[in-house]
Amino acid sequence: MTAIYAKMAVIGCGLIGSSIVRAARQAGCVGEIAIAETSAQARSRIVELQLADVVTGDAAEAVRDADLVVFAVPVLSMGAAAAAAAPGFKPGATVTDVGSVKGAVAEALTAACPDGLFIIPGHPIAGTEQSGPDAGFAELFQNRWTILTPDPRTDEPYRAAVARLTDFWTAIGARVEEMDARHHDLVLAITSHLPHLIAYNIVGTAADLEGVAEAEVMKYSAGGFRDFTRIAASDPTMWRDVFLTNKDAVLEVLGRFTEDLQALSRAIRWGEGDKLFELFSRTREIRRGIVAMGQESAEPNFGRDRGKH
Amino acid sequence: MTAIYAKMAVIGCGLIGSSIVRAARQAGCVGEIAIAETSAQARSRIVELQLADVVTGDAAEAVRDADLVVFAVPVLSMGAAAAAAAPGFKPGATVTDVGSVKGAVAEALTAACPDGLFIIPGHPIAGTEQSGPDAGFAELFQNRWTILTPDPRTDEPYRAAVARLTDFWTAIGARVEEMDARHHDLVLAITSHLPHLIAYNIVGTAADLEGVAEAEVMKYSAGGFRDFTRIAASDPTMWRDVFLTNKDAVLEVLGRFTEDLQALSRAIRWGEGDKLFELFSRTREIRRGIVAMGQESAEPNFGRDRGKH
Repeated sequence: MTAIYAKMAVIGCGLIGSSIVRAARQAGCVGEIAIAETSAQARSRIVELQLADVVTGDAAEAVRDADLVVFAVPVLSMGAAAAAAAPGFKPGATVTDVGSVKGAVAEALTAACPDGLFIIPGHPIAGTEQSGPDAGFAELFQNRWTILTPDPRTDEPYRAAVARLTDFWTAIGARVEEMDARHHDLVLAITSHLPHLIAYNIVGTAADLEGVAEAEVMKYSAGGFRDFTRIAASDPTMWRDVFLTNKDAVLEVLGRFTEDLQALSRAIRWGEGDKLFELFSRTREIRRGIVAMGQESAEPNFGRDRGKH
Repeated sequence: MTAIYAKMAVIGCGLIGSSIVRAARQAGCVGEIAIAETSAQARSRIVELQLADVVTGDAAEAVRDADLVVFAVPVLSMGAAAAAAAPGFKPGATVTDVGSVKGAVAEALTAACPDGLFIIPGHPIAGTEQSGPDAGFAELFQNRWTILTPDPRTDEPYRAAVARLTDFWTAIGARVEEMDARHHDLVLAITSHLPHLIAYNIVGTAADLEGVAEAEVMKYSAGGFRDFTRIAASDPTMWRDVFLTNKDAVLEVLGRFTEDLQALSRAIRWGEGDKLFELFSRTREIRRGIVAMGQESAEPNFGRDRGKH
């Protein structure tokens, strides 16, 4: 295909950044690729993997002449990364990111970037528990949603930049949706941030449980726990930043979760089997809705390899 | 191979019962197979699937002349199922089960069965979120642990019965471990029962969250929530029974989980990033321990198909 952007710069080359680079090159939707990465160790690995035309520690150098700049660093590093890149931006470039929180990132990018750029925050709902440039792969975004949270601006040049960025994500396999940043942060609080918090928490609780050795927990983890350990293996810096920057929405959904859990706890204590049965039947229907939506299509043997009794 | 048991009776033919039948037939480790199933609909399906030599609604008929009797019904139905089978038991037969709670089941089986049987409660740590005779498959127990919780009896005939049952599980692919019933119930409370309770709870919380449509939750469930929906699709009756019969251990680990979650909530509210980072780094190490133990060997593309950011 013809390149959608003549030059793309990716700032931060971990799982997501390196997947974008691989996917864009495979799709042929960008011309030149520059990567800025602050870790010298990661940089030499990126060179070995031949991921980019330019590999540098200097964000301003990477973004020079780039039509698309993608910030793929932890959420709390976005502001500093954008400030480092600021001297190099090409006027009229599109600036986006891949952070899991959008309100805080939009503020940080807007504060750090000069005028005359098209800032369009974004979030691909895709990933694994792995980190680093070796963890990425070109197919990561296939049939996954990428949410863009553009400004409410309706002027033609900005909307044209949004359309172009949408084409880019589509070219690398994603389905794109626009959303208000605040709404994004609430939706993701329940579909992603709270699940991660709970997974981290239960793995910690298990490790501290006297009377049960850690080796036993690992050995019998096929009972359901194993799913949580995978989620709880996600990047610590990335997730610390998510919870610190999406505090209000996370505390809100966490409060509701805890309230509901207390009610369940009480139902168990008092032997109210009908309440348990009613909830468990309802949640089973919700799963069927997700399967019916085809979200499981990539996982044909899903149930067989995993699960529990 | 030579049959380990000349006749096996399986009482209850859902996911686990039908998997045992399929696996035993494939391994050639039993001679005749009889299935007792109270649901007429399931019975005709079992006949269609040609799973057994005898298919009946009468447990006493099924267990007649059986050397091995496996109760594979929900935990709270074990007592009634054993009472129904009681008139038919062959003296000296081995009686086992597959329930996820062992203390309560041992009591129920002991109370309902006549003397002169070898009662050896058991629990294969394997399964999926599916139910019914169609859901089973012969490979379900491959490289999974089955925990037996025999009586502390040390007399030779009983220990010989335990050894024979161990051979049976080994023949159908499982690794077998003996454990005290009470300890089993605590270990499983943290590795399986609490994870299920939490998964059920968060899916319920999400469904009730105003401002976020259920369709949105489903659409963006790749962010981590999807794993929980799969677990929360598990059989409602089975799980209701687990929570009602393993109440003490579940409430104990749930109490610790909630305490830890409150501490995390407080760390988020007060912006204590170092506390979050410390926990998240620790849980990542635990996951590495599980992967190192080879528990993930059946799932080569595990991270790729799933997960989130």
